[in-house]
Amino acid sequence: MIAADTPIAEIGERELLRRIRARIPQGAGVVVGAGDDAAAFETGPLTLLTTDCLVEGVHFRRAWSPPRLLGRKALTVNLSDIAAMAGVPRHATVSLCLPGDLPVSFVDELYDGLLERAAEAGVALVGGNLSAISGPIVVDVALVGQADRPLRRSGARAGEILVVTGTLGAAAAGLGLLSQGARLSAEGQLEATGIWTAASAAAVLHCLRAQLDPAPPLAFARALAEHDLASAGLDVSDGLSGDLLELCRESDVSARLDAAALPVDPYAASLERAQGRDAFRLALHGAEDYQQLLAIASDRLEALRDIAGVWDLPVTVIGQLAPGPPALWLERGEELTPLVPDSYEHFRSDRGHGTSAPRA
Amino acid sequence: MIAADTPIAEIGERELLRRIRARIPQGAGVVVGAGDDAAAFETGPLTLLTTDCLVEGVHFRRAWSPPRLLGRKALTVNLSDIAAMAGVPRHATVSLCLPGDLPVSFVDELYDGLLERAAEAGVALVGGNLSAISGPIVVDVALVGQADRPLRRSGARAGEILVVTGTLGAAAAGLGLLSQGARLSAEGQLEATGIWTAASAAAVLHCLRAQLDPAPPLAFARALAEHDLASAGLDVSDGLSGDLLELCRESDVSARLDAAALPVDPYAASLERAQGRDAFRLALHGAEDYQQLLAIASDRLEALRDIAGVWDLPVTVIGQLAPGPPALWLERGEELTPLVPDSYEHFRSDRGHGTSAPRA
Repeated sequence: MIAADTPIAEIGERELLRRIRARIPQGAGVVVGAGDDAAAFETGPLTLLTTDCLVEGVHFRRAWSPPRLLGRKALTVNLSDIAAMAGVPRHATVSLCLPGDLPVSFVDELYDGLLERAAEAGVALVGGNLSAISGPIVVDVALVGQADRPLRRSGARAGEILVVTGTLGAAAAGLGLLSQGARLSAEGQLEATGIWTAASAAAVLHCLRAQLDPAPPLAFARALAEHDLASAGLDVSDGLSGDLLELCRESDVSARLDAAALPVDPYAASLERAQGRDAFRLALHGAEDYQQLLAIASDRLEALRDIAGVWDLPVTVIGQLAPGPPALWLERGEELTPLVPDSYEHFRSDRGHGTSAPRA
Repeated sequence: MIAADTPIAEIGERELLRRIRARIPQGAGVVVGAGDDAAAFETGPLTLLTTDCLVEGVHFRRAWSPPRLLGRKALTVNLSDIAAMAGVPRHATVSLCLPGDLPVSFVDELYDGLLERAAEAGVALVGGNLSAISGPIVVDVALVGQADRPLRRSGARAGEILVVTGTLGAAAAGLGLLSQGARLSAEGQLEATGIWTAASAAAVLHCLRAQLDPAPPLAFARALAEHDLASAGLDVSDGLSGDLLELCRESDVSARLDAAALPVDPYAASLERAQGRDAFRLALHGAEDYQQLLAIASDRLEALRDIAGVWDLPVTVIGQLAPGPPALWLERGEELTPLVPDSYEHFRSDRGHGTSAPRA
């Protein structure tokens, strides 16, 4: 029995690998699981592959993210990408870079979250890689999925309407709450409200969960593909403004956003209002909401709403596409102004890169 | 035109992504390449997936590895894993964690190597991920391949013989040469011999290349599968002793290694001899030779040699398997002694983790 606070340097790579492998169930269609040179599994004719990583000090802080939630999120951000392609997630590898003084309990709890989220999503973990690092923790997931008709970022046409699922701004508000001392427990319960009173507990919990344990509309995206309703789509991970501009660039269209229509998250709005601010900017530019942004022909809206209704998922028409060149316009009543994206970008020194989680 | 020494922090993530994407050719069978939420490509019924990463300060040093060779190696270590499963490599994603002060030329040259190696191996790069990091560079590749009959680590049987391709110890010797000041140029030519004279140039070049730009027998491994000759196999990445013990554990057999038979790399041997040492330990325990270690029935050796002959690839019988429990024995003439693996393990504080490349 190894004590939970044992540094992984005392255990070593092979023992840690065995510890991890012993926990990973054999998934459906998996011919070779974790523990060989590569995993082998049965696939359909069209395979999807995505990779996304969480870097300590950039995407998360150890003091802010319980390892279990970090494990869940590391898979979720990839699940969201596969969903955005209208795909079914199938098999994942986990590549970890870990400092040697990390307690083994951190890795155990990280895998609690990874395995739990994998089971929820029907994904088989099929291996990965462990490496030492003299620096921040890196959790890099590669996720393979399947799609009959992948939904691309290109394909949107002028005249189509823009639809977004769920609400926007909660994840960015959650990031602000973390910096104000609010915390979730490993179980995803409210552990500290920070500067907030118990009266705001529900809002604080909601926004912290949006940031630390996001729940993208995975099943909805899949159903969407089966009914071939959308022309183009992507997940809102960097922020609506920047992600929408990507869609415009890939489809060579421009977009007009209706400011009044934006589904600003009501909890985020209440917390921002209490601080004399407006959550509109969070909804417009804030990162990591992991909702789906879709371009559809307006005569398909009814069918789209029917499908979303199965999961009680709000879908909101937030604007319309016009011919290119790629550009964004914000419509407030009669006023139409150019919209400059302010989404998160890595590396930019003016955005505080490398020192904090993505800016809201 | 962006100057080569421009820090990537001045360029930003989206621009750097565009710069990379503009260089990536569309591969065969690729339906959606880089630039969408996930890649989509046509696959056969059985898909392989592996991931392996190179971490600065652990697997490489910036002063020792020209970025082009680093890019080549980042793909090669994954190609070796797919080859060890007797698979054909097909599609790869590249996940980079980069500090903001890194010059853009580093990323350009890294991709020179990645793209060149991908073209050599018939692999399509289909996307990836960029993240900032406040710390070491991380290059993480996920590689998808195909196999009709994957060659596993399990499946070896008592009585079978052990065969290894190529020579062993050159990569570990190359690591020692780097610490003695020897260097390769970005083109893989000898730039500095370090403490060595010109008379040793050929040996120094050979060992540096083995360390910085390894060339696993990829096509051989593939042909092997077509002829169904091996019972089990893996690539020698952590060191023969440790990797062989893995094979024994997975197949529940023990192994007897014939010390005299080990194909010690002759260049590594000459350099070690000049320093009054024996390269045998490098061949036995040294990491990163990326040769293939195979268990085969002895009556298949001739057929195996025929196939290896196509690529002028030496194959050497280095020992035999016996019933379990998993253990290693070293045979020197009449003497039979237990062999304790001394292969590289991450995290182990007694192995100098996090401060240097894998120990030889």
